[in-house]
Amino acid sequence: MALPTQTDDFPGWYQEVVRQADLAENSLARGTMVIKPYGFAIWEAIQGAMDAVIKRTGHQNLYFPMLIPSRLLEREKEHVEGFAPEVAVVTHAGGEDLAEPLMLRPTSETIIWDAYSRWVQSYRDLPLLYNQWANIVRWEMRPRLFLRTTEFLWQEGHTAHETAEEAWEETLRMLEAYREVAEGTMAMPVHKGRKTAAERFPGAVETTTIEALMRDRKALQSGTSHYLGQNFAKAYGVTFLGRDGEEHFAEATSWGSSTRLVGGLIMVHGDDKGLRLPPKVAPVQVVIVPIFRSDDQKTRVLEASEKMAGAWRVAGLRVKVDDRDDLRPGYKFADHELRGVPVRVEVGPRDLDADQVTLARRDTGDKMALPLAGVEDVLVGLMPEIQQALLDDAIAFRDAHTHHVKSEDALRDALAGDGGFVIGAWCGGADCEAKVKADTKATIRFLPLEQEDPGAACVVCGAAGIEIATWAIAY
Amino acid sequence: MALPTQTDDFPGWYQEVVRQADLAENSLARGTMVIKPYGFAIWEAIQGAMDAVIKRTGHQNLYFPMLIPSRLLEREKEHVEGFAPEVAVVTHAGGEDLAEPLMLRPTSETIIWDAYSRWVQSYRDLPLLYNQWANIVRWEMRPRLFLRTTEFLWQEGHTAHETAEEAWEETLRMLEAYREVAEGTMAMPVHKGRKTAAERFPGAVETTTIEALMRDRKALQSGTSHYLGQNFAKAYGVTFLGRDGEEHFAEATSWGSSTRLVGGLIMVHGDDKGLRLPPKVAPVQVVIVPIFRSDDQKTRVLEASEKMAGAWRVAGLRVKVDDRDDLRPGYKFADHELRGVPVRVEVGPRDLDADQVTLARRDTGDKMALPLAGVEDVLVGLMPEIQQALLDDAIAFRDAHTHHVKSEDALRDALAGDGGFVIGAWCGGADCEAKVKADTKATIRFLPLEQEDPGAACVVCGAAGIEIATWAIAY
Repeated sequence: MALPTQTDDFPGWYQEVVRQADLAENSLARGTMVIKPYGFAIWEAIQGAMDAVIKRTGHQNLYFPMLIPSRLLEREKEHVEGFAPEVAVVTHAGGEDLAEPLMLRPTSETIIWDAYSRWVQSYRDLPLLYNQWANIVRWEMRPRLFLRTTEFLWQEGHTAHETAEEAWEETLRMLEAYREVAEGTMAMPVHKGRKTAAERFPGAVETTTIEALMRDRKALQSGTSHYLGQNFAKAYGVTFLGRDGEEHFAEATSWGSSTRLVGGLIMVHGDDKGLRLPPKVAPVQVVIVPIFRSDDQKTRVLEASEKMAGAWRVAGLRVKVDDRDDLRPGYKFADHELRGVPVRVEVGPRDLDADQVTLARRDTGDKMALPLAGVEDVLVGLMPEIQQALLDDAIAFRDAHTHHVKSEDALRDALAGDGGFVIGAWCGGADCEAKVKADTKATIRFLPLEQEDPGAACVVCGAAGIEIATWAIAY
Repeated sequence: MALPTQTDDFPGWYQEVVRQADLAENSLARGTMVIKPYGFAIWEAIQGAMDAVIKRTGHQNLYFPMLIPSRLLEREKEHVEGFAPEVAVVTHAGGEDLAEPLMLRPTSETIIWDAYSRWVQSYRDLPLLYNQWANIVRWEMRPRLFLRTTEFLWQEGHTAHETAEEAWEETLRMLEAYREVAEGTMAMPVHKGRKTAAERFPGAVETTTIEALMRDRKALQSGTSHYLGQNFAKAYGVTFLGRDGEEHFAEATSWGSSTRLVGGLIMVHGDDKGLRLPPKVAPVQVVIVPIFRSDDQKTRVLEASEKMAGAWRVAGLRVKVDDRDDLRPGYKFADHELRGVPVRVEVGPRDLDADQVTLARRDTGDKMALPLAGVEDVLVGLMPEIQQALLDDAIAFRDAHTHHVKSEDALRDALAGDGGFVIGAWCGGADCEAKVKADTKATIRFLPLEQEDPGAACVVCGAAGIEIATWAIAY
């Protein structure tokens, strides 16, 4: 079935790509999803890269329970107000009603900082640099596959430090780790920045974020790293004997990235034919489509295809031979384009007679006939080339849809017109921020990591600007 | 703090090893645990090996939601009776009471086979060979860290096939995969076998198992692979158009292994000094303990230690330098013995003067002084040697505690005395099985995968034996 075009109906395009490329589907409980094998393999690639960076930066994995006694959430005031409305509660287990209800974790600061109160005694116990891969439940009123689901998979890092400086460095280190995976593995360009007070994680002193621009010119928050100050240490009583012989509260960070990244990958690279996958996360990097009419041709072409596939796998490529015999080549071409396989190789009897194959790049659509002898080297070389081309493409798209404005009218016009990232001066006032949101649905996606003087008046109220704000309509 | 000896107090020994080696601790909700970084790194090693075997045998990972509408469980009669008493239920979410309660998965056959009813239409859609890594909740009345916890981590495979033969082959293939990981990665010898009807998974036609013997001579069920026949296909309406043009119900298997394996690892290899970790799953394979008195010595010895560590890491070893300066070498030796690090290397100024180091093997306690020049090759070679030695040791222990009996008295004496695996003829009767269990607490752990004539009378009732049963007291 044909996809809606991105221009006509982006949400419909997204939904159909997810369905037809077999990435995920809705499940029975409200807002939950099944991540299907092809979608899960993409997630495993992202997860593998993220896990490697998390470990390289000195963190260890561990695992805390999903079930959290309700009383724990209540200790940090902003945190409970932020999460209580989304929480799912277990009230019955093992055949009887529970004396105390148990929450399904909406995030794990509460149970982890309760444990840290027992784990931390002295500065010698610090820093704690821990991460967990886990499932999270937040009740969603408007669920959407990968982007906003009642249950999702993520990693959450929770670190404890002696000093504020160290904790802030950690916050930025992990934000940079997210940028590295987004750009280096997913070929998804992101801006790093600071959130406004209104957009902060409940309980955070500062929230930092990576923000990407999707093909419908909406922004996607793709990972956040929080500096939590001493808020959780005070709520859960995490003190340590310092080098100075005094008791101090520990300083905290937390940082998370989730299966939402798969949604970002789809929307940052996809086109009207479907997915375009960067080679580093593509479950299949090269698909061989054998072309034949007779049984004799079939035997010959399949044998040659399997031989090529074997050699290319040894060279480190993920190769699939599409030997389904009930489907025509044209159908297979479209199917693999939909699934975003970076390179298609067509092999028919005439190709074999001429000792050549035909390559087709998914990202550009370019086709080229190549001598069989050198094709392995070409394929190996194409992988980083396509990876880079997709990143360049996405950067160019983002730049083309980034606007600088100096007045509220221009801001409103840009957001209502082209969309994209709209940059202007801001006075720092919550009223101005709220006014733009009410008028345009756009939010301030980020401020620079270090406050910068915009050298201009606030685009909303005309008072002195103190921040450079980047607005966008966001997922 | 000294450990209880295994002989005096095995449960106390287990509890203290888990605590002192920092593997896990109890969490707040009843029966839940925190898996701490050292314990989790062991789990990651087991998980990595298991995931590789699951993929090598042609399976793909996916992910189903944890929340399952209650009505789904009720469709398969034996299954609901088996699991209903252990289920935890979400009744409240997003600020309101739910119209339909949601169960936390105690296992995922129900939600997966409901999806398979939509995924399977024709024999061309089969087989489905899927696996997921997930957390599971089963309300536990007598929880025990790693061995029986309210929430645990596992993988569960769920496959659908055209024929019973294929499904049975799959059941045995994955049982063999479990044996491979248990013996090949964990150095934990296991018997493969079939469960009796009384011990089957609720809803299974046959349950197969791998069973290991712990150092207290109790058995641990360490992984199970089930042939489910058409029970779930019938309950969830999974039919397909066969090659013969007729509608058929699909044939099913499921198979699971969990964080319980970490408990097995502890109890199959541990001794009175603590853990003994096989190199393949040891987070640290070689620990270097620098020995010094003066600051000058310290600088020299630490520099030499870091240099060795760097070289050995390049050689593929996981090496740690224990540079904690507030602890004495003797304390560190005991600490790393407790944590089961396979090899300790001691480096002091006198060693450096003599161009040598001292190695100590955790498994045997052997110490040897070696010239520095060749020590890297010795260490690399020691890893498989220690891996094999631990497996051989465990096999010898199991063989020494395996008894063949011909009468009920002998069976009872063996179980009440030495314990271990006790093998005898059985008539196949549930009454005889129940009688032994009531008298001795022992259960039939397994029967041969293919029924074998014991050539002897049932050790309980004296009627004709039709099965060779292996009894043990089990976890």
